[in-house]
Amino acid sequence: MRVLILGGDGYLGWPTAMNFAAAGHEVTVVDNYLRRRIAEATDSEALMATPSLSERAKIYHANSGHEISVRIGDLCDPEFMFDVVRDTTPDTIVHYAEQPSAPYSMRGFREARETLQNNLDVTFNCIWAVKEHAPDAHIIKLGTMGEYGTPDIDIEEGWIEIEHKGRKDTFLYPRAAGSLYHTTKVLDTDLLWFYVRTYGLRVTDLMQGPVYGISTDEADLDPGLCPNFHYDDIFGTVVNRFLVQAVAGVPLTVYGGGGQTRGYLNLRDTLQCVRLAAEKPADTGELRVFNQLTETFTVNELAERVKGAGDKLGLNVEIRSIDNPRKEKEEHYYNPVYSGLTELGLQPHYMTDEVLIEMLERVRVQSHHIDTDRIMPRVRWNG
Amino acid sequence: MRVLILGGDGYLGWPTAMNFAAAGHEVTVVDNYLRRRIAEATDSEALMATPSLSERAKIYHANSGHEISVRIGDLCDPEFMFDVVRDTTPDTIVHYAEQPSAPYSMRGFREARETLQNNLDVTFNCIWAVKEHAPDAHIIKLGTMGEYGTPDIDIEEGWIEIEHKGRKDTFLYPRAAGSLYHTTKVLDTDLLWFYVRTYGLRVTDLMQGPVYGISTDEADLDPGLCPNFHYDDIFGTVVNRFLVQAVAGVPLTVYGGGGQTRGYLNLRDTLQCVRLAAEKPADTGELRVFNQLTETFTVNELAERVKGAGDKLGLNVEIRSIDNPRKEKEEHYYNPVYSGLTELGLQPHYMTDEVLIEMLERVRVQSHHIDTDRIMPRVRWNG
Repeated sequence: MRVLILGGDGYLGWPTAMNFAAAGHEVTVVDNYLRRRIAEATDSEALMATPSLSERAKIYHANSGHEISVRIGDLCDPEFMFDVVRDTTPDTIVHYAEQPSAPYSMRGFREARETLQNNLDVTFNCIWAVKEHAPDAHIIKLGTMGEYGTPDIDIEEGWIEIEHKGRKDTFLYPRAAGSLYHTTKVLDTDLLWFYVRTYGLRVTDLMQGPVYGISTDEADLDPGLCPNFHYDDIFGTVVNRFLVQAVAGVPLTVYGGGGQTRGYLNLRDTLQCVRLAAEKPADTGELRVFNQLTETFTVNELAERVKGAGDKLGLNVEIRSIDNPRKEKEEHYYNPVYSGLTELGLQPHYMTDEVLIEMLERVRVQSHHIDTDRIMPRVRWNG
Repeated sequence: MRVLILGGDGYLGWPTAMNFAAAGHEVTVVDNYLRRRIAEATDSEALMATPSLSERAKIYHANSGHEISVRIGDLCDPEFMFDVVRDTTPDTIVHYAEQPSAPYSMRGFREARETLQNNLDVTFNCIWAVKEHAPDAHIIKLGTMGEYGTPDIDIEEGWIEIEHKGRKDTFLYPRAAGSLYHTTKVLDTDLLWFYVRTYGLRVTDLMQGPVYGISTDEADLDPGLCPNFHYDDIFGTVVNRFLVQAVAGVPLTVYGGGGQTRGYLNLRDTLQCVRLAAEKPADTGELRVFNQLTETFTVNELAERVKGAGDKLGLNVEIRSIDNPRKEKEEHYYNPVYSGLTELGLQPHYMTDEVLIEMLERVRVQSHHIDTDRIMPRVRWNG
């Protein structure tokens, strides 16, 4: 199939592109390097240098024989979005093209506005490009488990039947996110649902938990194909931060009480999920939602896991609670359903000691590049 | 109190401004005349000529002795929004400044994008202006009953307690609107709720049904103070369209089956509701939601009411069903709760024969200006 990957330069976008190409699909990636610019401006560059998209496409071609087409441009510009969709006539559009940092979105007015406008404009332009120029294309949109927040009832997969005063109806599961970034994904969902039911688009919305991992079959072919590994407070997710702290010999910084529970998944499983969704698409007029995670644990449990793996490597890891920069519950109920993708065929890779040790070893090779200053929270929105 | 009215040139904005001024409050109105420009561009001007805001402020001052300050500018520009809020230091901000037409928002890509960007940008800038420059100001946001759509369970006032698998939690009532315009109000609600719970803003969100009426105590002082009376398919709501059709001697055009039920209110009651909300504000950190309507009926019932009133005036009114240009259920359950504003003190003005006859008589004076071409649907989004 023809696959168009919006945000193809990202931590998930690039490995996804290679994965589809390896499976014999015709892949085009599009990006405007927004994340690179924000990373430079905020001293948050990835630990390993990442070549440009066209350089990476060349390296991948040399190693695999597979071609990936690259287009650089801003998908907030409707003309560019429409051109790309017209030119590539995709069967599947994987939409990752959003400003992905919660702390950045909470830094101030300028950053909040940039996040809101970028994320909504790209989603809106993508919807209209499909409606006008590729009405049968299947949009796979990356949402986040963070859209739901931490409600005191079970989190269903996108939809919930509500029984109220003796009557019943089914609704989008109510959402209440913890940052403006996560809230833009809620708005995306609302927009997609409106256009799906009005114009019969076909959309899969993947509510993803925090992803970890730097190894995929394709990325492992060459160091230049490594996913962007961010460990800073802006782009680094909690697993990456802990791994780098373990290697750097500074305490793992748990935000607040550490009882925050989230659903995690390995980068390899993100690739599987997106492929499964693409190969078994949503129906016309369907907004299909999956919760994309393979296991849940608290931040404290995660810190203990990283410590356990680090200690086996002789790293002598410490754990320290620091003031929580975020506004979030530190003790809460958390019981998400996540059976849909397993039913489609997902074979999970869990966070074993082996997986953590392999990541620690790859980080250790780069330890001279670690700047521990950028790991501590530089943005606060908790009072 | 100091009251800032965003969108002060509108059908509701201008009467609200006069009403607050008459009660002794210090009022500033802001508008960029977007609705006037769209009305000109789409042949949808109001039936009665409406002077500019500064002319209306002069006429009102001459008739009442009350001052209303006028600022013309685009609230999508954050610098302008911030300046206005800094300069006026409002206690209350009434936010009407949105592109208000559902059909216009469904006309095509350009109009949809304009609606999304205008409505979200103004709400976002308003939130930040309050957060940064007037943190204690109370925002009164005009939402719409259309945010909820037509669910098969009772519509609560903004919030719902959900009992699910033996546990309970309270959520924003799920929303599923019928046009992009209505969907932008859903996004507004999501954004407001995020910033209310994160930064402790105080917000009242009024879920309003279709408003009718051209008479208020202040508007009746001079013909130049009349609210913008739109009867076209773009800006005219169903009551206004029916009244003009009755006067023009053309059949009242019911969209489809006519079983669509909505909650209506008199313009005088909108003014009461907004005043009551302002004088009894939401608490810090509260998103207070009221359903703003005083009675519900189907489109068929509404047509019969207008026919009844018209026949008393000897107008010999006919009713005709036409293809529904909108995508909406034509038979559905509809049971909204709307007790909150009554508890605050609202004294409803119902849609009596007297009220309809008075409106018909005022339309009849202008009957030579009626252009019946602009009443029929010019925008379709039903397949």
